[in-house]
Amino acid sequence: MTVLADPTPDALDALRRIAGGGVREGDDMAAYLAEPRDLFQGHAQFVLRPDTTEQVAEIVRHCANHRIGIIPYGGGTGLVGGQLTSDGPAPVILSLERMNRIRAVIPEEGALIAEAGVILQDIQQAADEAGRLFPLSLAAQGSCRIGGNLATNAGGVQVLRYGNARDLCLGIEAVLPNGEILRGLKTLRKDNTGYDLRHLLIGAEGTLGVITAAALKLFPKPAATVTAMLAVPSPAVAIRLLRHLQDRLGDNVTAFELIKDQGIRFLEGWMEFTDPLGDNPPWRVLTEITGAGDLEDRAEAAMAEAFEAELATDGALASSEAQRAAMWNIREHLPEGNRRTGSISSHDISLPIGRVAGFLDTAAPRVHAIDQSLRINCFGHLGDGNLHFNVFPPEGRRHRDYDNLRAEVKGTIHDLVDEMGGSVSAEHGIGRLKTGDLVKYGDPAKLAAMRAIKAALDPHGIMNPGAVLT
Amino acid sequence: MTVLADPTPDALDALRRIAGGGVREGDDMAAYLAEPRDLFQGHAQFVLRPDTTEQVAEIVRHCANHRIGIIPYGGGTGLVGGQLTSDGPAPVILSLERMNRIRAVIPEEGALIAEAGVILQDIQQAADEAGRLFPLSLAAQGSCRIGGNLATNAGGVQVLRYGNARDLCLGIEAVLPNGEILRGLKTLRKDNTGYDLRHLLIGAEGTLGVITAAALKLFPKPAATVTAMLAVPSPAVAIRLLRHLQDRLGDNVTAFELIKDQGIRFLEGWMEFTDPLGDNPPWRVLTEITGAGDLEDRAEAAMAEAFEAELATDGALASSEAQRAAMWNIREHLPEGNRRTGSISSHDISLPIGRVAGFLDTAAPRVHAIDQSLRINCFGHLGDGNLHFNVFPPEGRRHRDYDNLRAEVKGTIHDLVDEMGGSVSAEHGIGRLKTGDLVKYGDPAKLAAMRAIKAALDPHGIMNPGAVLT
Repeated sequence: MTVLADPTPDALDALRRIAGGGVREGDDMAAYLAEPRDLFQGHAQFVLRPDTTEQVAEIVRHCANHRIGIIPYGGGTGLVGGQLTSDGPAPVILSLERMNRIRAVIPEEGALIAEAGVILQDIQQAADEAGRLFPLSLAAQGSCRIGGNLATNAGGVQVLRYGNARDLCLGIEAVLPNGEILRGLKTLRKDNTGYDLRHLLIGAEGTLGVITAAALKLFPKPAATVTAMLAVPSPAVAIRLLRHLQDRLGDNVTAFELIKDQGIRFLEGWMEFTDPLGDNPPWRVLTEITGAGDLEDRAEAAMAEAFEAELATDGALASSEAQRAAMWNIREHLPEGNRRTGSISSHDISLPIGRVAGFLDTAAPRVHAIDQSLRINCFGHLGDGNLHFNVFPPEGRRHRDYDNLRAEVKGTIHDLVDEMGGSVSAEHGIGRLKTGDLVKYGDPAKLAAMRAIKAALDPHGIMNPGAVLT
Repeated sequence: MTVLADPTPDALDALRRIAGGGVREGDDMAAYLAEPRDLFQGHAQFVLRPDTTEQVAEIVRHCANHRIGIIPYGGGTGLVGGQLTSDGPAPVILSLERMNRIRAVIPEEGALIAEAGVILQDIQQAADEAGRLFPLSLAAQGSCRIGGNLATNAGGVQVLRYGNARDLCLGIEAVLPNGEILRGLKTLRKDNTGYDLRHLLIGAEGTLGVITAAALKLFPKPAATVTAMLAVPSPAVAIRLLRHLQDRLGDNVTAFELIKDQGIRFLEGWMEFTDPLGDNPPWRVLTEITGAGDLEDRAEAAMAEAFEAELATDGALASSEAQRAAMWNIREHLPEGNRRTGSISSHDISLPIGRVAGFLDTAAPRVHAIDQSLRINCFGHLGDGNLHFNVFPPEGRRHRDYDNLRAEVKGTIHDLVDEMGGSVSAEHGIGRLKTGDLVKYGDPAKLAAMRAIKAALDPHGIMNPGAVLT
């Protein structure tokens, strides 16, 4: 579908003028052409950094007229290569980083309006200062930007209670591929006037338009927070523990993260931490329970029952904010531990919760049938059925030496996920990394409809060429 | 865009054969050609009542080939005429009523899979029997069907806590306008594989396909329920009361319904009820607070504080299930009271919560400037900013005598809602009744994108012709 052209110097100069003084070219744009997993290297004419929605609209109109590809760019933290392209005519990168204003905080409406370039942590902080909670929370929150979070429908550690990024968004402003501005920043809780383009653009990874601002949902701050790290005999028991806690505490169970011993070992040697649990148990969970003031007693009672029922074998309860932060610090550095070790193949999968344990029991022997020396790390948002299941070389070896196994490892894992009714991209998206998986595992009717929608809204294929659909 | 044809007898016969024995024709289809507000009268070839998704797909394929319009039909309870058409070549009605199986109840996954024709109340009951809650709840629940609830993104009385129909749906199976089956019945909590067609079809009112089944979200049953009817001095104070309760009880506040005295008066004479409040106060709220076992004391303390702060002036707390049911019975019969009285114009609007009181202060004088004798009833889901603001003739007069005022009344209300950043269809949808409003008040970029998507997925315009987009 893509019919992009190599842009003329005049067309490029016009873009430079529209974007004003913020253009980054040559060596100054190197950071925009790499991605965290180092699987892809991008190319581009330059990086445009507009300041207003109107400038974005003018850039997109110009690119549509001249058939120039556009890579919308947030914080660059995506893990599936959706933020760059290496094929076809070099596109322009459209970074939203200078559109970083919080336009309004309306605590009494439970709403906040932020431009796409606001860093997630800054939104969390603005909400906090207004006495409210913005619950989207993930490891990259210090550098990812809300426009990217929405474009990829980011998940994170509080989905169990508050939902994915799409569930936290009341409305969006976006520039469509024809350069028109979709003005949908209403803060209404109910609005049934026509097709929900908000939900269509959220998760479309910039292929159907550029989100320029969003109206976000704020929540009351919970009065009490109970954080605990609990050793569990197995993932199957971890799920029983989750159900026990949910039976007792309902949706006060805000986070329930599974951690394998391997993930803790990957932190050793480069990160300073004290393990709240002794002897690094094979499996542990980090759980957080939040709610009204009387919650602590109820949460502690529920955990005591869990120990009696042998749903947990060891545990530590955070008794200070510092202890709480230390527990989360371990969880939040797991991805960095993985990165430093270097995986052969990483998988962001989800399963029906009842099948998670069965998956883990089956997946490990299948991986070891490929090569018995491979190491597995697994951690993630067990409460959502979402695991990061990553495969590593044996200790002392480099992942590059195992490049020849990547396709087989990945195919083995993804085939099993598909057999079990799961998803091969739970929270990271398709990007460039998983376009083949989308075709292989996706529903054909869905794919055909996606292609029809893409062609209808972006007939020249200018928006994020090479991502999601190829 | 519609290029529908008058079907040949052969083409119609083929449809009768595909659908099997359930076809309704002639006088037997009269009920399908009327709608609750009696504003429209439909026409149709006949009513097809297929039994399986495959039959639906075959019907849609045949209709696409022969350019025959299809009206997807659920319970027929929609209030904006989306369930019939009176223009153009007579379509076929595709009733999902025989696809009424609950395919699976999976309490441990918090999921239930139902075919589109299952009556909402039957889903509530199946969830209840499995020890779970399906929270979608609205006056028509005894006859509306889940496919229609999803197609129109129904709201109801528990949106404050649990969200609209779209928020309660994990996945859908649907037949697209080309007759292909979209197979998306996964029960996953996270799945970022491509465009979210589920959210596109939900709320599209059958114009982009026919939902044939859905995976729905179940919740833990709350251990405690506190229901109260409270007299409030004004809507502005009602909103302060809501904020007070939410400050104290967070999202345990599950329902918060505003009721005007006029609504209670409309119940008199035909319905037996005992008003829990004396003297029918000008405004009251019905609130329900649900949660864990210790909730009752906290809820009662929060209400006592509200009385002290004069946020409520009179009140009744349900102390038995019968009293609780009696309070809800009043609320649930308000629409019937309106219907029996007969409105000149009814409005399903939403506003930013902070503007609801200002809207009511302004709307009443504007209506009375048209005709001082008009009566206003207003009730609805104040917690969501969603009001049903309806205008009636003076006592003893019939609404038909005021038909000449309808356009002016409606325009006055909708203009004001639009000025205040609200929506002219909060939960009922566009249907046939509000297609003009969508054009008048809708965002032009959104409308153009909607038309492009409609043309891409349904190039012959066979799906629910005349609804949403004209």
